[in-house]
Formats: sequence, C-alpha cells, structure tokens
Amino acid sequence: MNSSNTSPFTLLHQSRECRARCGIVNTLHGRIRTPVFMPVGTQATVKAVTPEDLERLGAQIILGNTYHLFIRPGRQLIKQFGGLHSFMNWKKPILTDSGGFQIFSLKKLAKITEDGAAFRSHLDGSKFFLSPEDAVSVQEDLGSDIMMVLDTCIPWPASREETENATALTERWAMRSKAAQPASGQLLFGIVQGGMYPDLRRQAAEELVALGFDGYALGGLSVGEPKNQMYDMTEATVQHLPQNHPIYLMGVGTPEDLVESVYRGVDMFDCVMPTRNARNGMLFTSQGRLVIKNSIYRDDQRPPDELCGCYTCMNYSRAYLRHLFMCREILAYQLNSIHNLHYYCSLMAGMRSAIEQDSFLSFRDTFYAMRVQSPE
Amino acid sequence: MNSSNTSPFTLLHQSRECRARCGIVNTLHGRIRTPVFMPVGTQATVKAVTPEDLERLGAQIILGNTYHLFIRPGRQLIKQFGGLHSFMNWKKPILTDSGGFQIFSLKKLAKITEDGAAFRSHLDGSKFFLSPEDAVSVQEDLGSDIMMVLDTCIPWPASREETENATALTERWAMRSKAAQPASGQLLFGIVQGGMYPDLRRQAAEELVALGFDGYALGGLSVGEPKNQMYDMTEATVQHLPQNHPIYLMGVGTPEDLVESVYRGVDMFDCVMPTRNARNGMLFTSQGRLVIKNSIYRDDQRPPDELCGCYTCMNYSRAYLRHLFMCREILAYQLNSIHNLHYYCSLMAGMRSAIEQDSFLSFRDTFYAMRVQSPE
Repeated sequence: MNSSNTSPFTLLHQSRECRARCGIVNTLHGRIRTPVFMPVGTQATVKAVTPEDLERLGAQIILGNTYHLFIRPGRQLIKQFGGLHSFMNWKKPILTDSGGFQIFSLKKLAKITEDGAAFRSHLDGSKFFLSPEDAVSVQEDLGSDIMMVLDTCIPWPASREETENATALTERWAMRSKAAQPASGQLLFGIVQGGMYPDLRRQAAEELVALGFDGYALGGLSVGEPKNQMYDMTEATVQHLPQNHPIYLMGVGTPEDLVESVYRGVDMFDCVMPTRNARNGMLFTSQGRLVIKNSIYRDDQRPPDELCGCYTCMNYSRAYLRHLFMCREILAYQLNSIHNLHYYCSLMAGMRSAIEQDSFLSFRDTFYAMRVQSPE
Repeated sequence: MNSSNTSPFTLLHQSRECRARCGIVNTLHGRIRTPVFMPVGTQATVKAVTPEDLERLGAQIILGNTYHLFIRPGRQLIKQFGGLHSFMNWKKPILTDSGGFQIFSLKKLAKITEDGAAFRSHLDGSKFFLSPEDAVSVQEDLGSDIMMVLDTCIPWPASREETENATALTERWAMRSKAAQPASGQLLFGIVQGGMYPDLRRQAAEELVALGFDGYALGGLSVGEPKNQMYDMTEATVQHLPQNHPIYLMGVGTPEDLVESVYRGVDMFDCVMPTRNARNGMLFTSQGRLVIKNSIYRDDQRPPDELCGCYTCMNYSRAYLRHLFMCREILAYQLNSIHNLHYYCSLMAGMRSAIEQDSFLSFRDTFYAMRVQSPE
C-alpha cells in the first residue's frame, strides 16, 4: 500500500451524471466506504460522544489532531499505550492531520523555515519543532491509519508570490515526507495547496502525483473565500488528480458543501461543525437548521428531525432538548452531538446510495427542496 | 397502596446479625430491590449520563427535584408530556422530593409560614408559593412513583425550641399532605424531622406512623453534624418506624455512610456525591478515593478500579481518564459519572447479597479492610 504503484482505493461506481463516485479505502483497521465524513476527535475523543455512540450513528473513521496530541498527552505516552486506537478505545480507522493547519493558526507563536515549523504550545508557551519527517514519525507513533504530510497553509486572500512560495515549500516538504513514510502499512496522503490560483493548484497536484501518494487532499480551502470560489478551486484541483486514489477535502464543511463537493468528485471530508454547533444548540435537520433554544420549541413534542432515526430523535423531544440546553446540562451536548453526527453520516450514506443508483442529481435536488427552514 | 393499612414493601430477608434487611418496594413503574441507591436527576437528567447508561450500570430508581422542575421547565409542561418519565425517557421508577430542602437552602429567598413556603426562584427572582397540598399536586403532575411530603428543614446546630417548632410544623404539614394524596397509586412518604434530639425524633416518628404513610424518610441528617451523631440519630429514629415499610435516609452519603446506615436498617438512599465528585475528577473505588488529575496516573494503564466491571473500567485507563479530565473534555464527565454511579449501585448489590447470606458483618469488615487508600 505504500508503493506509488498501488492504491488503497477501490472504485465501486462512477456516477454517469457527474464526477461523484462510490468507493472503498482499505486501511490497517478496516475498510471505509466513500464518500465519507470523518467526525473530528481533536484530543483523543470526539467531543461529548463515546466510541459506541460513534459506531451506532454510523461513523466509519474519525480524525485526530496531531498538533493537540503532540502537545498533550504527547507522542510517547500514546505510543506506550500501543497507539491512539487503544488509548481512546476506538477500533475503526483513524486519520490524523499533520499539525500544519493548527501550527499555521497559532500565527505569532509559530515560525516556518525550510527545515520545518518552530512553534510554542498554546497551553503553556513551551517550545516545539516539527519537521516534515517529524510529522510523519509522530503520526507513526500515534498509529493512525491515514497520515497527512506537513504542509504550509496559505491565508486568504494571498498574493500570487506568497502563494507560489508557500506551495513550493509544501511540495519540497511533501518529497521529504514521502521519503520518511514507514513500512508499517500506514497510508500517507499528499496535500495540494496553490491558494486560489488554478494553475498553481494544477502544478501542485501534478508534482504531488509524480511523488506517488496513497491519497490526495485539498488544503487551503474553506479559509474565508466565497463559496463559489471554493467549489471552483475544488473542480480545478480534482480534475488533475488520479481517479484511482481517494480525494479528501480538508476541513469542509456545511451539509451543502458536502453535497456540492461530492458532486465534484471528492471522497472524504472532516469538519468540527456538527459537534461544535451541537454544543452551541444548533441542530442540522433534513429541513435546515434548528436553533434549539428558540422559545417556539418550548412545548414542541416532535423530535428535532421527524425523518431522522438517530438515538436522540427516537427518544427525545425538541422541548426536552431545549430544557436541557437552557439548563446547560451535559446531556444536551451529548444528545445534540449524537444527532448532528448522525445527520452528517446519514447524509453521506444517502449520497453513496444515490451515486450507486445513478440518481445523484435527483438526490441533490431533493436535498435542496427540503431545506425550507435553512437561513443560508 | 395508598391506605395506611397496606404497604408497598415486601421484606425478603432480615439479617440475623443486625438491623440490615433486604426487600422489595412495589411502585407504578415496577419493583425496586432494597437496600437501594437512587442517582440524583435534579433537572430531568442524571448529569452526564443517558437513561441507557443508568440501566446498564444497575440503577433501579432515580430521584428528581421538585423545586428545580417546578421552576424550570414547570409542572404544566411536564404534565403535558405525560409526566417526567416520558419527558426524560426513563422507564423505571422515579422518586421526587417535595422541594422543601431546596427551598430551605434558598435562605433569604424563602419565607416559611403555617400555610406553606413562599420563595423566589434562584434563576430570576420570580415569586412562587408552595403549600403542602401544592407539593403533592406538583408531584402528581410530575408523575413520580414515590412522592415526598413537604417538610421544614432544621439547620445544624439548632436549639431545642427551634427544633420543636419546626418538627411540629412538619407534622401538621404531613397531615395535610396525607389528606391530599391522590388515588393515582403514587406512593407518599412521610419525613421524620426532630433534629439531633432523640426524643423529638421518636415523637415525630410515632406521629407520622399514626397518619399511615407508604414509607418513612429520615430528614435533617447529613447537614453538618458529626458522623457519629448522624449514625446515632439514624438508630434513634429507625427503631420507632414500622419494619413493614421502606425506610429512606435522605441526602446520604459516602460509601461508608451507606454501609453504616444499611447496618442500622435503612433501605433507600440518594446523594449527589457520585455524580458531583465524578465531574470534579474524584473516583470511588473498592480501595478508596482516586483523584484522577494526580500526576501519578499520567501513564497508568490500569482501570480506575481493577475489581470493577463498569463500562469505564472495562474500556479505559487511568491515564486516558486523566488526559480527558486535564483537557476538560465532556467525555471525562460521562465516563467518571458512569463509573461512580456503578460503584454506588454495585455496592448496594453487594450489600443485598451479603444480607441474604447473613454475612453482612463480614461484608462490612472486608469493605473497610480494602479501603487502604481512603483519606477518610
């Protein structure tokens, strides 16, 4: 699986209507059916849910954040426990990011050089250094099934020169990362940068493909640019990536983003939105967004989404969830998170089924037609 | 079940060694095996756990707080949902307190008269009034299986005169409460006050028994008095209560308190300690208390309690629980609460079994002998 000549991806069905496709990604901890959404488990837990909750709601793979785990509890401790899977009691696949995006977000606390990223912990200011080789090595210790290369992120907006320089550095780091990939069977994905310049995206994609990664990710999107630009850049990148490898759009997004990106050929997604919004009392439903603290739900006996089969919707009313949220009860965060993650995973399952039946365009039409309450 | 001539209690076995006994309390939502611990679900949720978690960890009955539910979301809303059981998705028995203790705790926000308790909400200062009849009627709307009479609580220390007056008022309210008991099959328990005066406790018990309640509770204990005084008052009260009715020691306590009180003939308990301490990172184990943030657990691969079979202990290490707690992850509160509640329920199950085998004294000896780490 580590060779540039093989791929962990098996294409099951290419839509006849658009770039959308169904497939399987093979990993050390089992197979993932794509398109897939990966719940974010930043600090060795997907916030407010148990691993059993995740399995029940249909999660196939989760994401861990290398930066956070590197800082706390540290790579050594997790290695000592036999990796992240056994540390956190999650038996299915895990993808870890490289830490690049979080280090980039530290801004003044980080300094990027040719060699790598020097940064200070957001917790206590202690100094760390991460080279591209270190990022791979840390992820090897974490025992993730899919590792990401260390990349340099590009703010939005950014000049062509700034974008060129950062993209070129990302490519040089990608080469070093590839050379550092262990023979453990852990997959390594390259990350296509290139900012908002289609020709730089194409160049970055082609250079990465020449190195031969197990999968390819689109980085530097959903960083503040208009939606249409994000969709355009996705299109401009995907068409230059090999169709026999998984394609991952990092950090995206809303339910609408997922539908639009699957349409454009993306296979994998991650985003904090379902869990973060759950903790803020915003529930995703087939009809749009529902803000649970709204007084109109005070005595509403209906579940959050009448078409949903999740644990929360099968057992609790909007009125009860509103009561819990107003009381700041921990159960509010648990039940809302279960619902939102189920919504995301179930949306992906619906898309997989529609693609297999060559009815993705009709699925997309229905998806929008039902979203009567959506404020967006 | 409402008549003073019948009892919801069936004695299964009276220990030959001490006052400890095993029995069954029959309620509208099923039977409870005693001695029993009732997890506290103040605001229509036992904090940080689901109803399914509660069933799995062995909870037979939970407690709801009438004061909190009366204030928010209100009796009407819960009645509209068919009662607390269906509102919160808990199918087993529920005991509700009368609100007396919480109103007493409001201090300056509350005023007690012959008629009842006038008080202001701790949330927004809005005014409420609760008579003994109201307290029964609110609990009828909540649909609890076991209702408690409104009582006046007595601070510690309190003069004899103060104690006499409050105890006498509690008795007059008990009479009014008994007259207000509905024919719904919901049980009503009287509450014995009497402060730290054995003769007043005896008098209060005898007057309540003359009224004929379904069960009898000991109120006004665990309010700051020394442990030995609490145990003495428990003994002084229990011996004047009919042995064919359940006996409930309110708001108690530590694992040691439960063992000592079962020994003295108590059947039912409730306390926030297992859940509150869980959220503060203190775990109860067969060997004593374990403060999970302690750095000695940083890389400790053992479960919190090596003798425990709860979900937390079967799947997670002290190191992982410490990591979650240091990160303030919601899962920390969930896993710690599951463990502590399991510890309490399992301790009660162990006592039931020991009583049945007439080996309670040996059980108690072993219980203390194992608690090597206990700071108490």
